[in-house]
Amino acid sequence: MTAVASAAQHASAREARASYRSGVVAPTSGVAHGLVQANLIAVPEDWAFDMLLFAQRNPKPCPVLEVVEAGSFEPRLAPGADLRTDIPAYRVWRDGELAEEVADATAAWAEQPLVAFLIGCSFTFEAGLADAGIPIRHQELGRNVPMYRTNRDCAPAGRLSGELVVSMRPIPADRVADAVTISGRFPAVHGAPVHVGEPAALGIDLDHPDFGDAPEVRDGEVPVFWACGVTPQAAIMASRPPFAITHAPGHMMLLDVPDAAYAA
Amino acid sequence: MTAVASAAQHASAREARASYRSGVVAPTSGVAHGLVQANLIAVPEDWAFDMLLFAQRNPKPCPVLEVVEAGSFEPRLAPGADLRTDIPAYRVWRDGELAEEVADATAAWAEQPLVAFLIGCSFTFEAGLADAGIPIRHQELGRNVPMYRTNRDCAPAGRLSGELVVSMRPIPADRVADAVTISGRFPAVHGAPVHVGEPAALGIDLDHPDFGDAPEVRDGEVPVFWACGVTPQAAIMASRPPFAITHAPGHMMLLDVPDAAYAA
Repeated sequence: MTAVASAAQHASAREARASYRSGVVAPTSGVAHGLVQANLIAVPEDWAFDMLLFAQRNPKPCPVLEVVEAGSFEPRLAPGADLRTDIPAYRVWRDGELAEEVADATAAWAEQPLVAFLIGCSFTFEAGLADAGIPIRHQELGRNVPMYRTNRDCAPAGRLSGELVVSMRPIPADRVADAVTISGRFPAVHGAPVHVGEPAALGIDLDHPDFGDAPEVRDGEVPVFWACGVTPQAAIMASRPPFAITHAPGHMMLLDVPDAAYAA
Repeated sequence: MTAVASAAQHASAREARASYRSGVVAPTSGVAHGLVQANLIAVPEDWAFDMLLFAQRNPKPCPVLEVVEAGSFEPRLAPGADLRTDIPAYRVWRDGELAEEVADATAAWAEQPLVAFLIGCSFTFEAGLADAGIPIRHQELGRNVPMYRTNRDCAPAGRLSGELVVSMRPIPADRVADAVTISGRFPAVHGAPVHVGEPAALGIDLDHPDFGDAPEVRDGEVPVFWACGVTPQAAIMASRPPFAITHAPGHMMLLDVPDAAYAA
């Protein structure tokens, strides 16, 4: 990684994290433009190998950017940040059920040692799409990106299994190829789409996302689906580890690394 | 991975594995041309997370192709093969010391459940170099590739740490750029070189490799260094897990996957 973020970019990420730490809850799509955002999944130590192996076997939905070992809360990719407070919204899971959604995970994280995984997020390549003049509908509408559980199984790993989750962006038909090419340059943040058009083939009802907000697909646009870092949350629901903490979908951990660091 | 191996390639890999299973011991560079070869590192279950995390943090020397969980010995990437017998030579490690080198690891593997990691090998891109007319000196001489422990530390993970190990190929000065470009197309099998020329800067004495055979660098050639999948063996020596089984350097696990499957 040779690319370096600008001072202004660092400041925008730090300011956003500070606002989330102080209680602001909002989706992060478009925030700190040009810096990488990450999904969070934190599991008990005796589930950490299964989680890392699940990610290794499912690199498209689960590209691991960093593993923060139990006892530490400060990512190398965001020095000075605190994983327990600097994400706008968290989900606490007990036995595979969503137990609560909180703006501060300090109390939940104190229950037991957790290994935290930061996983690449498609918001990273949205900057590239926007820079190429491709509209990002959910940003235009001030909504969260729609995400769907699909009928495709991930490769299981130990006790973890579950369906692939995808995010969807409606893309004008004459820009689909560009969207594929641009996102394909970022294999560490989900890369090229897994599916273009034909939502029914993925078992998806477009109007009813499982996470995020409903989409608005206009005439001349094609729904394009990217592997999504919420996939580990589907694995939690399916596999029922005793405890886990994740980000709330669309509410990501902002890192200090520029998107360009992950361009292939 | 969409590339598919030919029937002749499959047959050559299967025949070679059968010969190793029956006791033949020989380096595998150049064997089953066009198919992927892999390093092996198998560790006790309670070291598996550290090993997988070490690989995740050091992807250049330790690109994980497959993890075979305890109790299984058949890689998905080589159906019908047996990890305990189908590698030409194994090393058995006790408390970080090389205890023995064997042609059959069945007895050693029976001592306790082990998780096996198959890690990409630079022999994979040698086919690409040879196809481009770049000479592979150790193949010409019928020797094992020279490998060196360097003065560069890997990123530690849990209880595992150690130096980066590199393999070296002498490349004609006018083909170094081609060698960089060709190997750079294979990030899952170490990718582009980590160092070109100036072995002393890596703390290396060219004539005295730590693994494999001494090289022959001719006038007009530059020593080129690639990250090497023997790096986990250096980590074993430095970190002293109670038990491990690896391949013997240069004596790899032949898989049924074509090199092209790992071209970026």
